[in-house]
Amino acid sequence: MGLFTKDIQNMDDLFVHTLRDIYYAENQIAKSLPDMIDKATDTKLRQGFEKHLAETKGQIQRLEKVFKMHGVEAGGVDCPAIDGILEEAEEVSGEVEDKAVLDAALIASAQAVEHYEITRYGSLVAWAKRLGRPDCASVLQENLDEEKATDQKLTELAESGINQKAA
Amino acid sequence: MGLFTKDIQNMDDLFVHTLRDIYYAENQIAKSLPDMIDKATDTKLRQGFEKHLAETKGQIQRLEKVFKMHGVEAGGVDCPAIDGILEEAEEVSGEVEDKAVLDAALIASAQAVEHYEITRYGSLVAWAKRLGRPDCASVLQENLDEEKATDQKLTELAESGINQKAA
Repeated sequence: MGLFTKDIQNMDDLFVHTLRDIYYAENQIAKSLPDMIDKATDTKLRQGFEKHLAETKGQIQRLEKVFKMHGVEAGGVDCPAIDGILEEAEEVSGEVEDKAVLDAALIASAQAVEHYEITRYGSLVAWAKRLGRPDCASVLQENLDEEKATDQKLTELAESGINQKAA
Repeated sequence: MGLFTKDIQNMDDLFVHTLRDIYYAENQIAKSLPDMIDKATDTKLRQGFEKHLAETKGQIQRLEKVFKMHGVEAGGVDCPAIDGILEEAEEVSGEVEDKAVLDAALIASAQAVEHYEITRYGSLVAWAKRLGRPDCASVLQENLDEEKATDQKLTELAESGINQKAA
């Protein structure tokens, strides 16, 4: 960050800053998913997390593609938001003993992560279009669609039985 | 948090913990909205934030009602997630000079906050139903509906012109 000047001067800067924010976030999520896989008991939930880890790696590659298309170097910036969301996920899961309750807590934590990604990709897609970059918007939209689908699957998993087992 | 025992033993504990999490979050949001109102330039955006501040105060009262219905004392717990989201909002807005770009950044930050609330209220409503408390679920659903409507209005505001002015 600039000491005397402000670093975000125009929409393009805001777009690149947010791209770096979600790039950092996706990389942190990829690091934290193996721990969530280890903690999950329900087979479908474990499989869902495993699938999402593979998806997340693909999403990181798509982001690298967008950096390249936009002519800027791929890289992250500090993202206190995802750090806080992941810290809270770890804190809460560390407080739960019962396996079924832990699964319910893991789903809620994963959905908090998904919603963070959904909101950032939503902004990035809108800004890419306004900046006259429908090509970048279309790649980012693929990530957005995957995050929305994952959130929906987590809701279905919770409603299908995990919350019932836990209650 | 317990030093030797885990504090969340069952679904009811998880429900109350998350209720305290969102209660803390709503109170922090109420504290940070006046700053966002000050920074916003677009009249409709300012009015939107002002309306949401009034709504947030109503949502806090609804949460206090749910605490009472559930027979537990109203109170917050640390919520690193909302702290991180609000910290990031402040950092990013501090980096933007141009008024139109700042409005676009403020909308994105506000939507990150909304999505955090949407995911927590979504879990709370589902858990209240599973715990046989449709009365609590129904009060929490009112907050959830307001957050979703606010997120939708922010998207409309961004698409209606603020992003266009900024690009």
